[in-house]
Amino acid sequence: MVEGLGVFFEPRSVAVIGASEKLGTIGRAIMTNLLGKFRGRVIPVNIKYDRVFGLRCYRSIRDVPEDVDLAVIAVPAKAVPRVAEECGEKGVRGLIVISAGFREIGEEGARLERELVSIIRRFGMRMIGPNCLGVYDAYTGLDTVFNPDEKQGKPGPGGVAFISQSGALGAAILDWLARAGVGMSKFVSYGNAADVKEYELIEYLAQDPRTQVIAAYIEGVEDGRRFVEAVEKAVEAGKPVVVLKAGKTERGARAATSHTGALAGSYEVYYAALRQSGAVVAEDLEELFAAIKALSTLPQPRGPRVAIVTNGGGAGVLATDAIERSGLVMAELPSETIEELRRVLPPAASPLNPVDILGDAPAERYSRALEIVAHSGSADMILVIALLQSPALDGSALVKVLAEAARSYGKPIVAVMPGGEYSEKYMAELEKSGVPAFKTPAEGVKALRLLYSFVEGRRRVLARRSAVSRGGLHGWGT
Amino acid sequence: MVEGLGVFFEPRSVAVIGASEKLGTIGRAIMTNLLGKFRGRVIPVNIKYDRVFGLRCYRSIRDVPEDVDLAVIAVPAKAVPRVAEECGEKGVRGLIVISAGFREIGEEGARLERELVSIIRRFGMRMIGPNCLGVYDAYTGLDTVFNPDEKQGKPGPGGVAFISQSGALGAAILDWLARAGVGMSKFVSYGNAADVKEYELIEYLAQDPRTQVIAAYIEGVEDGRRFVEAVEKAVEAGKPVVVLKAGKTERGARAATSHTGALAGSYEVYYAALRQSGAVVAEDLEELFAAIKALSTLPQPRGPRVAIVTNGGGAGVLATDAIERSGLVMAELPSETIEELRRVLPPAASPLNPVDILGDAPAERYSRALEIVAHSGSADMILVIALLQSPALDGSALVKVLAEAARSYGKPIVAVMPGGEYSEKYMAELEKSGVPAFKTPAEGVKALRLLYSFVEGRRRVLARRSAVSRGGLHGWGT
Repeated sequence: MVEGLGVFFEPRSVAVIGASEKLGTIGRAIMTNLLGKFRGRVIPVNIKYDRVFGLRCYRSIRDVPEDVDLAVIAVPAKAVPRVAEECGEKGVRGLIVISAGFREIGEEGARLERELVSIIRRFGMRMIGPNCLGVYDAYTGLDTVFNPDEKQGKPGPGGVAFISQSGALGAAILDWLARAGVGMSKFVSYGNAADVKEYELIEYLAQDPRTQVIAAYIEGVEDGRRFVEAVEKAVEAGKPVVVLKAGKTERGARAATSHTGALAGSYEVYYAALRQSGAVVAEDLEELFAAIKALSTLPQPRGPRVAIVTNGGGAGVLATDAIERSGLVMAELPSETIEELRRVLPPAASPLNPVDILGDAPAERYSRALEIVAHSGSADMILVIALLQSPALDGSALVKVLAEAARSYGKPIVAVMPGGEYSEKYMAELEKSGVPAFKTPAEGVKALRLLYSFVEGRRRVLARRSAVSRGGLHGWGT
Repeated sequence: MVEGLGVFFEPRSVAVIGASEKLGTIGRAIMTNLLGKFRGRVIPVNIKYDRVFGLRCYRSIRDVPEDVDLAVIAVPAKAVPRVAEECGEKGVRGLIVISAGFREIGEEGARLERELVSIIRRFGMRMIGPNCLGVYDAYTGLDTVFNPDEKQGKPGPGGVAFISQSGALGAAILDWLARAGVGMSKFVSYGNAADVKEYELIEYLAQDPRTQVIAAYIEGVEDGRRFVEAVEKAVEAGKPVVVLKAGKTERGARAATSHTGALAGSYEVYYAALRQSGAVVAEDLEELFAAIKALSTLPQPRGPRVAIVTNGGGAGVLATDAIERSGLVMAELPSETIEELRRVLPPAASPLNPVDILGDAPAERYSRALEIVAHSGSADMILVIALLQSPALDGSALVKVLAEAARSYGKPIVAVMPGGEYSEKYMAELEKSGVPAFKTPAEGVKALRLLYSFVEGRRRVLARRSAVSRGGLHGWGT
């Protein structure tokens, strides 16, 4: 069944029902997206036009002579069931229904939605939506996200997939990911999930070779058990799943119900089930971002021990506080390591963790300290703090040192660079070389904690699975 | 005594001891700062030169013919006591000792520091430092922060004063405040606080007419009682004091001790005392920033009730969760308000709090909803969420609406604009018109919570003071 979802990302041909050249219409925006990027055939359908953007436009999808894999539907809600029926007759396999005006508006819409579902079931089609932004595939260029280009950034190809129950928030996150330079495989705004459910998307993405990290914004899920199982399978296969669940409080859950009509359920129950399944649970958008950045760029840490290397004592203290409060552990450097650090660092430096290499440290001193700390075997992760305001520290030299360290030591390294324009410039450069950078010690520690929570969660899942399978074998064998 | 601190910010003449034209020296950087911005007289002193930047350079401060109010000392630690003695003989009133190599390096340095203190006491001078970046006054242009201009931003004139025990972190925060467009009165990196203590700075700033908000980064204070009293006095006078205390955990406190030699003490004790004094306690740099932005731009809320107006349901749910978990309260809109909203909003909108004005809302719809909510009398603060990716919402029209609303309704309004480049552009524009903007609902709520914590804290302080004074009168009168 999950195989069937491929049509939403790699169709050979797409019909846009409601295609238009009229400024400000969704039909125009989707046509523009597809004509600009999509590699397959694009077929405009609209009863009002003969040609759209120079292409032959059909009055109905039934008039299209060739095969159509996928139809994107952006017509008024009331017309959707009829259009879907025509798609079924035509042999279309997948529908992305952008149109709103279904379950989310009340009983009348819910009736329309049930009618729509019964039609797509009857023809064996699959449907994303209704009431959604649909799909953005950074590899194939399939893109139904209809916000104007100047307002809506879209990430280039990469390993992060993101699914969102909320279209508007999903688009904002997409925009933010683009700005942060995060590479993406697929984005799905699935709206009312009348047919394709979030757990199916996760199952599909778990098998998608282009997807390395799965992120999800959810308000409520219909089938919690299947959702959790899908997450657990992805985690078992080594793919982190980051979940931000909104509607955590009673009042928030009520707001969620009025937003999507989904029952949010008790967060405690969700939280426990998600943790059990090995999901990386993000408490808010900041954590969702920190987790995506860390999981999509860093190797897995072997344990929770963090060493800090800093050119500012105060920032080192803040980072120490954050680590101690996070559940991670401050690495205890062995005495040989401390001695080695003492030998290469100035006398006023502190060779204990946090390793304070002093305000006059050039990039080279970072390099030596990092080498010694990385080889000590006592730290699973390294948090590097660089206050780039210092006259002694050149931003581009530091970027080289950190990129090289990240390549050489096989350990997660994150950078923290508090400051203004100069710091922001080198944060961006550093991220281009694959080292995630954050503005504050607390954010950097958050990223490491979320990264490690995947390792821990996966261990729990594997241990439980192997216990079950040992139990099973035992049961069979004797 | 506090009056005496004026010499550090508005001296008529400043001697730079260790002045130089040599590239990369602190003496050159401070000379450049002062010659570029400072309005008073600048006098270079250096045994090695006759002229520095075209000015007559003296071998000793004793050779300077005119009066010198303030001396900035950037010579090796061992020479500092002799130089200070000469300053005393010359009648200098204030010293800013940039030089490091005192208490922070161990017993030998501590001895040197005691010697220095006894000299300045003998002559009745006051001293900031040693081991510090000194002072930046955005109004007078007195600036001893010696980091290179291309790496170190410095805020323009405004109402925020910031004092920092850590020089490097202080500079990074200064840089960040400049980037964020926060206007500043004074920055003081006070280093070892061998003479001028942080509580004196707070007492001084509490009386400084240019300072509206005081922020402090501290690791440890020598006299906790006087610190807390200084905070309380400032709060009583209506000036918020935001305190970020590092060394909250045992391990962090140990790192702080090795950083500045200050005993960090138990955070629980600090926290209780700070809250008692009406301080706004920031847990990390993010909170320090959110508090500064909110307190320096927003009016005081009368109570904890927040209304949300959003064009995205999902973001509204996240904000509701954040409010409910923060200790603030979701405003309960009265039924007349709900009816009024129903009349002006489309049928699918939600007129309950969070007020969801839908993804197709133009700026005008925000304007109408805000007016109704602001006039309802049921909300003390308003959180506006704008997903600017929406084709219907023009960034610059929204900025106008929000700036007008902030001016008209006398209530704190913060904006949340998740997204990428387009959103960042209008966040910056909005902040220029005095409405603080944040990237996520959680950050916006954090800002409102910290803002309200000042109102609450001040109320507690005033109630306690008035109880004490009533008690006192009673004791006297009868």
